[in-house]
Amino acid sequence: MPDETVSEPRHLRDQPVSSRAIEAAVSRLQSLLDGESLLTATDQVAEFRDPFAHPDWTSFQPSAVLLPTSVEEVQAILQVANEYKVPVWTSSQGRNNGYGGPAPRVSGSLVLNFRRMNRVLEVNEESAYALVEPGVRFFDLYDHLRANNSRLWTSVPDLGWGSVVGNTLDHGVGYTPYGDHVAQQCGMEVVLANGDILRAGMGAMANAKTWQVYKRGCGPSADGLFMQSNYGIVTKMGVWLMPAPDCYMPGWLTLKRDSDLEILLERLRPLMMDGTIPNQPMIINAVCAASAFAGREDWYTGPGPIPEDVIDDIARQPGFGRWVMRFALYGDETIVERQRQIVSDALGTIDGATISFSKYDGRALPEFTNPHERVQAGVPSMDLDRMTRWYGGERGGHIGFSCAAPITGRDGAALRDLVKGELSRAGLDYSGVIIVGRRSMIHVGLVVYDTEDAVQAKSAYDACKALVKPAAKLGYGEYRSHLDFMDMVSDQYDFNDHAQRRFNEVLKDALDPNGILSPGKQGIWPRSYRG
Amino acid sequence: MPDETVSEPRHLRDQPVSSRAIEAAVSRLQSLLDGESLLTATDQVAEFRDPFAHPDWTSFQPSAVLLPTSVEEVQAILQVANEYKVPVWTSSQGRNNGYGGPAPRVSGSLVLNFRRMNRVLEVNEESAYALVEPGVRFFDLYDHLRANNSRLWTSVPDLGWGSVVGNTLDHGVGYTPYGDHVAQQCGMEVVLANGDILRAGMGAMANAKTWQVYKRGCGPSADGLFMQSNYGIVTKMGVWLMPAPDCYMPGWLTLKRDSDLEILLERLRPLMMDGTIPNQPMIINAVCAASAFAGREDWYTGPGPIPEDVIDDIARQPGFGRWVMRFALYGDETIVERQRQIVSDALGTIDGATISFSKYDGRALPEFTNPHERVQAGVPSMDLDRMTRWYGGERGGHIGFSCAAPITGRDGAALRDLVKGELSRAGLDYSGVIIVGRRSMIHVGLVVYDTEDAVQAKSAYDACKALVKPAAKLGYGEYRSHLDFMDMVSDQYDFNDHAQRRFNEVLKDALDPNGILSPGKQGIWPRSYRG
Repeated sequence: MPDETVSEPRHLRDQPVSSRAIEAAVSRLQSLLDGESLLTATDQVAEFRDPFAHPDWTSFQPSAVLLPTSVEEVQAILQVANEYKVPVWTSSQGRNNGYGGPAPRVSGSLVLNFRRMNRVLEVNEESAYALVEPGVRFFDLYDHLRANNSRLWTSVPDLGWGSVVGNTLDHGVGYTPYGDHVAQQCGMEVVLANGDILRAGMGAMANAKTWQVYKRGCGPSADGLFMQSNYGIVTKMGVWLMPAPDCYMPGWLTLKRDSDLEILLERLRPLMMDGTIPNQPMIINAVCAASAFAGREDWYTGPGPIPEDVIDDIARQPGFGRWVMRFALYGDETIVERQRQIVSDALGTIDGATISFSKYDGRALPEFTNPHERVQAGVPSMDLDRMTRWYGGERGGHIGFSCAAPITGRDGAALRDLVKGELSRAGLDYSGVIIVGRRSMIHVGLVVYDTEDAVQAKSAYDACKALVKPAAKLGYGEYRSHLDFMDMVSDQYDFNDHAQRRFNEVLKDALDPNGILSPGKQGIWPRSYRG
Repeated sequence: MPDETVSEPRHLRDQPVSSRAIEAAVSRLQSLLDGESLLTATDQVAEFRDPFAHPDWTSFQPSAVLLPTSVEEVQAILQVANEYKVPVWTSSQGRNNGYGGPAPRVSGSLVLNFRRMNRVLEVNEESAYALVEPGVRFFDLYDHLRANNSRLWTSVPDLGWGSVVGNTLDHGVGYTPYGDHVAQQCGMEVVLANGDILRAGMGAMANAKTWQVYKRGCGPSADGLFMQSNYGIVTKMGVWLMPAPDCYMPGWLTLKRDSDLEILLERLRPLMMDGTIPNQPMIINAVCAASAFAGREDWYTGPGPIPEDVIDDIARQPGFGRWVMRFALYGDETIVERQRQIVSDALGTIDGATISFSKYDGRALPEFTNPHERVQAGVPSMDLDRMTRWYGGERGGHIGFSCAAPITGRDGAALRDLVKGELSRAGLDYSGVIIVGRRSMIHVGLVVYDTEDAVQAKSAYDACKALVKPAAKLGYGEYRSHLDFMDMVSDQYDFNDHAQRRFNEVLKDALDPNGILSPGKQGIWPRSYRG
């Protein structure tokens, strides 16, 4: 395998779009959209840059922002984009932070954002689902349910300001038993590049009773094609909601030694596989845990990455450890109590581990004080936003270096050691987060930095880029990636001389011949950019 | 909506392929494949017709049969098919009975069948999955696991002779907690029409450790595109397997009155949604239940459909009812016992209902005498094959008229009444089967007939065809359909003037420009057949 597998002319990708074409398209759009639907003022457009870019960064710059309020406006926008052959980069809320936020891969792109198309179109209490527009935030869906005395729970990620649709489309996760958000998606409406409106799944039948309850339809299932993708713009999505459980029991497990991660993963795997732990546990290391409550200067002010003995000091704080796992149990109280016992027997018996639980009435939740108990009950908040301010400064940022792996001690240790090693060389702390699913886990190197410190920011991006190939050599692919190294990540998917890329390009060219939809998203480039 | 939405020239679809082209292609294939890989003798080819076609039926006839033993042979076959522009209709084992079996939509097609490509390539005990070739039957996978003292269970449909891959690709189901077979699929290898080999999901990375454990990859997920599809030929598939539970508890619920179906579905819905019942229960009516044990002549020999009072007689037999539901619980014994209590409280309290359970050590299963207990433990058999011989005669057949619906009493009653009414008019008995998932159910009208009775067989097909549009008008689409009315079913998916069809055709033309792969599958026709 050659060291650099991309042979296409990179300049088409990294040079901005022709400003003349953009100006002409914007002028045309101004005649179609009102001032609230089309932003061109520099300060307004700047809000749609990557919020974690450092100040002198020039890549990934939007030229104007489109905020449609209807499917018809989306169609009108695409008609203009096809006419002038200008790229439209779509985000829902644009909170894909750590991976580029709302910023486009190709500078000069028009950014289409759905913040103003944010209606909860339906909540069905009987079959427990919602149909939402892409601008609906986790906060909005939660508030809607509470305002209507719904018995249904949302599943939310750590920060509640993101879009339910956007998070799902980028393979995002939450932390109730419905935390595998892609698995809870049921039904989709998509505007294709040519403006045609497709409803995937049973929605392909105009009056179907099953669009939001039966996941497939008649023939091939297209839903997965529109996730992490630039094949269409999702304008409606169904999402399954969880009936409130009788009993909600969040739990904590702390581990004494760094090496205990391996035994934990070995003992956790069967509990995940058989559903004894039904949600997606999150395992974080001491540095990550500390960053939720304090700044780095409270622990260490010396040079280089935080030393092991200081990490040990952090780990000795009450409720901390070298690793700590949050998880939760849900349902009938007798069953939950038995699950508590099984989990305690399996995990609480690890040498030096502590395990503890809280118990709540799932139908009458309190005002939680602990942000981790809140998020696992599907209650959105912004509490954990402070983790990015670890290095001090007002403008903390992070990049996610996020690999999928089997749930084994070997794989956990390999990723921990790889990421920690590279970050140490870069002078950065290793903030490790492992989100555990049924048969796989995502190891996120949460690479935190001060965006106003240009040197540190560059180190952070460089460290992530330096990790991509070594991770792939070990067999770990990223499940999501920042704009800055999206192509490099895509290059690692190399089976049969990049058969996946060839296949993706055939679909891209067939569905979007002018290459207007989010060029470069996940390394998929339209013909005109491939040279 | 016009009554007949298909405006394309039907003759291209229903006329056989040019026999000259087929002869030339077969001649070329004879130089590439040995006599075991290419069958042309009339009696051998006849085995790949629809086994439930009646004798004087001329549609859906294969011209020759290809039985490749390797991916390379599949590639060679497609090269010839492209050269001579002849259709290749693919099945795995070809046991898609009730929907056409191995028979092709277009008469004269070459039938590609995978019975000789049947290796279990890997079983991973740690992460609990298998990687299989498409010819692997449920019997084969089960036998492989038992021969290797595996702790893993398969999930199997009622008849064990089908292909694990083929069943999954046609959205088939089984009856353990892993019974939603599509949901257990993880990773796929596909030969595209041009012979290129694609690995979907994490398999796109050549040395990925996660191909069979993490369901998505980098970018759009293509797996769903290759199910109920003619976009590629699946040559490998990953399938998740269930670790044997401590305790296995199959249960039976019988209902006294026909109308009790509605209250059952209402009470069952929450138990499905929260996983109290973790497998896919099957609810069958008295006629269906009787057909597993006896012939129709034991109950009724008069004219017309079996009368209500005779059905009441059947329902009064021990273990029977107007409806009977089989279901099962799995896992830790304390949890299973609590689930038994919750289920009994919710369902056993329906007026006139009886509920009963058996209990087994999940790690040391007995030789089951009851076929329903066997299938819900993932043990394949052919026991339930006798249901098709309801009308007597050696060659019983059935057609599945199979709609997806929400899990509500209203929807259950509406489908029951619709299907029963139409079958009664056709002089046929209503054998009703409802398979219940997390948020939807499939109502199967199991239309049973004697294939040697040409009049009855025609009545059965005509009744199914007569049901398609009325069902669609009520909002119910079929989840799978017989070749004979596949186009009609596809026509009902009409949102936005058949946007799904337009989309499917764009993909078909891009991926298979010569239209060689299974033309007509699920109503998707290549350009050359669309006129």
